[in-house]
Amino acid sequence: MERPRHQGMAKNTYMRWRLPLVCLLWEVAMIVLFGVFVRFSPEADAHWEEEKREMNLTSDMENDFYFRYPSFQDVHVMIFVGFGFLMTFLKRYGFGAVGFNFLLAAFGIQWALLMQGWFHSFKDGKILIGVENLINADFCVGSVCIAFGAILGKTSPVQLLVMTLFQVTLFSVNEYILLNLLHVKDAGGSMTIHTFGAYFGLTVTRILYRPNLEQSKDKQGSVYHSDLFAMIGTLYLWMYWPSFNSAISEHGDAQHRSAINTYCSLAACVLTTMAFSSMLQKKGKLDMVHIQNATLAGGVAVGTSAEMMLTPYGSLIVGSISGIVSTVGYVYFTPFLESRLHIQDTCGIHNLHAMPGLIGGIVGAITAAAATEDVYGKEGFIKAFDFTGVYQTRTPGVQGGFQAAGIVVSLLMAFAGGAIVGGILKLPIWGDAAAENCFEDEVYWEVPEDEESDVYHMHNPDKPASP
Amino acid sequence: MERPRHQGMAKNTYMRWRLPLVCLLWEVAMIVLFGVFVRFSPEADAHWEEEKREMNLTSDMENDFYFRYPSFQDVHVMIFVGFGFLMTFLKRYGFGAVGFNFLLAAFGIQWALLMQGWFHSFKDGKILIGVENLINADFCVGSVCIAFGAILGKTSPVQLLVMTLFQVTLFSVNEYILLNLLHVKDAGGSMTIHTFGAYFGLTVTRILYRPNLEQSKDKQGSVYHSDLFAMIGTLYLWMYWPSFNSAISEHGDAQHRSAINTYCSLAACVLTTMAFSSMLQKKGKLDMVHIQNATLAGGVAVGTSAEMMLTPYGSLIVGSISGIVSTVGYVYFTPFLESRLHIQDTCGIHNLHAMPGLIGGIVGAITAAAATEDVYGKEGFIKAFDFTGVYQTRTPGVQGGFQAAGIVVSLLMAFAGGAIVGGILKLPIWGDAAAENCFEDEVYWEVPEDEESDVYHMHNPDKPASP
Amino acid sequence: MERPRHQGMAKNTYMRWRLPLVCLLWEVAMIVLFGVFVRFSPEADAHWEEEKREMNLTSDMENDFYFRYPSFQDVHVMIFVGFGFLMTFLKRYGFGAVGFNFLLAAFGIQWALLMQGWFHSFKDGKILIGVENLINADFCVGSVCIAFGAILGKTSPVQLLVMTLFQVTLFSVNEYILLNLLHVKDAGGSMTIHTFGAYFGLTVTRILYRPNLEQSKDKQGSVYHSDLFAMIGTLYLWMYWPSFNSAISEHGDAQHRSAINTYCSLAACVLTTMAFSSMLQKKGKLDMVHIQNATLAGGVAVGTSAEMMLTPYGSLIVGSISGIVSTVGYVYFTPFLESRLHIQDTCGIHNLHAMPGLIGGIVGAITAAAATEDVYGKEGFIKAFDFTGVYQTRTPGVQGGFQAAGIVVSLLMAFAGGAIVGGILKLPIWGDAAAENCFEDEVYWEVPEDEESDVYHMHNPDKPASP
Repeated sequence: MERPRHQGMAKNTYMRWRLPLVCLLWEVAMIVLFGVFVRFSPEADAHWEEEKREMNLTSDMENDFYFRYPSFQDVHVMIFVGFGFLMTFLKRYGFGAVGFNFLLAAFGIQWALLMQGWFHSFKDGKILIGVENLINADFCVGSVCIAFGAILGKTSPVQLLVMTLFQVTLFSVNEYILLNLLHVKDAGGSMTIHTFGAYFGLTVTRILYRPNLEQSKDKQGSVYHSDLFAMIGTLYLWMYWPSFNSAISEHGDAQHRSAINTYCSLAACVLTTMAFSSMLQKKGKLDMVHIQNATLAGGVAVGTSAEMMLTPYGSLIVGSISGIVSTVGYVYFTPFLESRLHIQDTCGIHNLHAMPGLIGGIVGAITAAAATEDVYGKEGFIKAFDFTGVYQTRTPGVQGGFQAAGIVVSLLMAFAGGAIVGGILKLPIWGDAAAENCFEDEVYWEVPEDEESDVYHMHNPDKPASP
Repeated sequence: MERPRHQGMAKNTYMRWRLPLVCLLWEVAMIVLFGVFVRFSPEADAHWEEEKREMNLTSDMENDFYFRYPSFQDVHVMIFVGFGFLMTFLKRYGFGAVGFNFLLAAFGIQWALLMQGWFHSFKDGKILIGVENLINADFCVGSVCIAFGAILGKTSPVQLLVMTLFQVTLFSVNEYILLNLLHVKDAGGSMTIHTFGAYFGLTVTRILYRPNLEQSKDKQGSVYHSDLFAMIGTLYLWMYWPSFNSAISEHGDAQHRSAINTYCSLAACVLTTMAFSSMLQKKGKLDMVHIQNATLAGGVAVGTSAEMMLTPYGSLIVGSISGIVSTVGYVYFTPFLESRLHIQDTCGIHNLHAMPGLIGGIVGAITAAAATEDVYGKEGFIKAFDFTGVYQTRTPGVQGGFQAAGIVVSLLMAFAGGAIVGGILKLPIWGDAAAENCFEDEVYWEVPEDEESDVYHMHNPDKPASP
Repeated sequence: MERPRHQGMAKNTYMRWRLPLVCLLWEVAMIVLFGVFVRFSPEADAHWEEEKREMNLTSDMENDFYFRYPSFQDVHVMIFVGFGFLMTFLKRYGFGAVGFNFLLAAFGIQWALLMQGWFHSFKDGKILIGVENLINADFCVGSVCIAFGAILGKTSPVQLLVMTLFQVTLFSVNEYILLNLLHVKDAGGSMTIHTFGAYFGLTVTRILYRPNLEQSKDKQGSVYHSDLFAMIGTLYLWMYWPSFNSAISEHGDAQHRSAINTYCSLAACVLTTMAFSSMLQKKGKLDMVHIQNATLAGGVAVGTSAEMMLTPYGSLIVGSISGIVSTVGYVYFTPFLESRLHIQDTCGIHNLHAMPGLIGGIVGAITAAAATEDVYGKEGFIKAFDFTGVYQTRTPGVQGGFQAAGIVVSLLMAFAGGAIVGGILKLPIWGDAAAENCFEDEVYWEVPEDEESDVYHMHNPDKPASP
């Protein structure tokens, strides 16, 4: 097979010492820090029998494990299969999509257990972890998976591990500001996960702008079966999103309500996505990119408000709008962002996470501001917004204002953090590939000789390279 | 690539105004109706704290959410991944299988929440929804997914949305007759979901009979990897079927028992399917079509009786028989139905849902008729069949009779409903494809240029069409 | 396509009477034995209402179903999708991997319900089954799936059914010795499932050694998409392993703790696997075989100790080590085992299950021996190791000794059992394929004509065979 000479082949993508070094360094650090800081929460500790007696619990069922473990497992599937397979749509980057997502998430959850633990579960010098910490760690890593979507195919695994280290840290700081200082509600993470993660990723990809990326244009598309693999990711994200938005809500009605609102929003989102996908194309045919992504915007857009009394019809409205916004984004905004703003957004996270995340933050602020004791009941009202202690006198209007402030803080953290981290990732030491080798598994993976096609043979040493 | 001229190409499959119009119309109607009617059930409402006190509940665990949410998520996976991927076996219709299933189910669950809500959860002018409603909506849509299996590849997305509208309506009426008027038990839906859904779909496909379908015969088969994608659907249906049959059973022993019976029935079904798949072929080789489908018949066939005292060995017997019937159906009945009765059943739902559904109804009637206070215990007997209020004096024998009547009603509703809906779908305005373009994603989807194969290039404008 | 003549083609792989006969015989035996022995446990029986009153239970939530069903479903997915798809990595053996795994597991769970029932749930002449029995049956079958990994592609379905019959029997005996006679803890089955299953399978494949297996060398690799299918299996095993290790632990803290320890161990394992996969290859590229398998070793290696107070940092250490050992195993031990010891281990179960299983047993013994009342609390200590009744006076040190004895017993049972069963499977009556037809679905399956490739056409009667 004759191929034009790759003029940029000079880039050194050799991973043999870099990747092991970073992996092992990171892991040793985790072991040391876990050894110093991390212990079991009382509900996971063998002293639980005594704890139960002290707390007057009559049944093991009262252990938080049984309230949250099924949702945790659903969230876990979303992070590893959902995000991992969603990104396999590229014809030659399936290993990188699912494999690097696996790597960064596996590291990220460890680091997130520590970072979030210091902020939220620190007691007598120890971080006490239980199932809710596992969910929160997965959530935190979700924001890294989102950012990964923007730079998919253009970064080395070492860059991803470095980015994960910094992004998890910044995520935790931002989350602390929102939840603890601003006393904002955001159980499904419209702001903390989606808005922050997406604008962080978009800033990073802007900094890492590659002017010659059209050299790998032939690899930026999908093939028939890669689109089906991606649909596995889409569907698992779509189906389990009710678990995502309800996983860390209060026990009882709040978890129940979050799941229902999310279910409704997502259902509506599918219809408007299909409508606009067909409408916006001359031939009226559906585009798999939209179906794979924009159908999920409804889950993002109720991330803040799902546990509030958004109501099922409110959810349908939010879901419908976010499906439209997201699909329109894929058709019009993504090309604009790339050509004018030099933001190369591989998976279109601007459409799936950034804009719907903003919608989610705004809907949350409005829903909070509109809350009344009549709708929530006296006790329900206090419980829903945790208007206790120093927040006893906060009104819904003020809460709405703080919710809005949470959006702004998340955006600022994302832009500033993304710029700094993008700068670090731009250093020429991390082993990223040249523009013409982007979106190509061959660079970092042993790729099997494929009898069905010769696309993976381009670096095959048995075949003479072009002169 | 030279291809013979497509003589039937006259058909207009242009979706650009039709599909968006129907999607948006349907969704706006949903928003309006949800706004008027749908609210949260007490267990999902923020007033729950007060509700709990009134009902003397000591723990949030008593919220129905925790009894049913894990099963709900399993059912959700069955509808979207299970049915969606099961139908990806066709070599060139994977997008349509998984994508249209996604579309119709997302619309169907909204409409089902309303229809079933009016019949079963209507209180003071409002439909109050909780997790059980979500499960029931998914169940209802399951019957549409089944019917979709019969017409897979031969209908436009607009037709599917129209069919969903009508089928969900008819499903809900039939379900109301069975559960409320006949006081029949059918927690896993052998009658309401499978028998009704399958005979409805078979009637529709009979009405839509295409005499020239052999023109697309080359696309009616599978390729190696499409068969593996289909196995994802099969396995998720198979694994989660115990959740399907137990999801809306009474709390406690009934849910527990349903899961065990279904587990046993499905295990037995795999062995008899494998046996007959090998036995019925001259070369003795296994056929993926049987493994993908007939292995599931055991779940269908205990849909009514799983929550009764069917016993594990009873389940093995039912599962064994249904595997045999289903496999024999694929080998002998499907060709017969097509050539003699002009019923073109793409996925063989007659074998997977219709016959096993009938078996399920009959087994349910017999199991009910054979119930004794000795086997169930005095309280268990009353609870299992809800022999309270006006049904206080109903005997097992009479219950068995009503169960049998439920089968007949479901069949009649399916035939009548299918005939009417089939007639509506036959109107030449819905944009279905010509016979030679059936089973081809290219018609409604942007299909990627596939380097591995040229099968998807047939409409490629760069290549000159045949004269 | 010209192919050299297959000299060993004499082997008779005709299944038409053998496979149906064995399947139906096995299933009829199951029905008879279930009829005689198997009934519902009190929690799944319709007498539950009375049972509840007798046991003073105030809520249906106290039914074991709600403590274990979500974990059961996760384990179920691991057995059927996890193991099934993990083995689809071979380019031409996807049907066999997922289909035969389906067959043997569906039979195995029935037989395991009986065998384990006789040992553990036998009361008044009946086996009383509930959700815990379903989990244990899945666990038992897990050990067969592991053994299947060693002989994947080289055995007929009849051989697999015969092996399953014997292995389930031996598993149950070994499990009885460990759990009941030695009073060993092994909730996640490092010894009973992994060590036993792996060394059993390795012994079987040693007995079935095929000297000419290099004749099918071209089929022993993967293709691009088969590696992605395998990643589905990997990720589901990885994500749900916390459920696997916690599924049958004591209610409350033990289940909670098992899940956390397993989560931590698996996360660490991914990083060390990636590090060593890159480090051990000259080009520094990652190898999919390692990512698909060695990342899971962390789950195996905490199978015994996860429910103990291993602590999160202890889990990170164990996970890190097992990832390294497993990856090194793939690079160095597997070739050695094949060339020197004539152990042909298709999936490398020695690296994924045998060595990590041993690590798991040892870590369990050490963790048990190191247990103190201080760490566990007085009650927690007794509860964790069940130091009641005749075991009231057992010390941690002695418990550690018995744990170590459990490893030895499992190994002996595996070697002895594997040798006998291997001998039986060597009989020339089971229809296994000749060496050059190994790893080829065509032998036992109807394989679709694949337009994308001609690799599956080799037996196509339309094409003239070579002279």
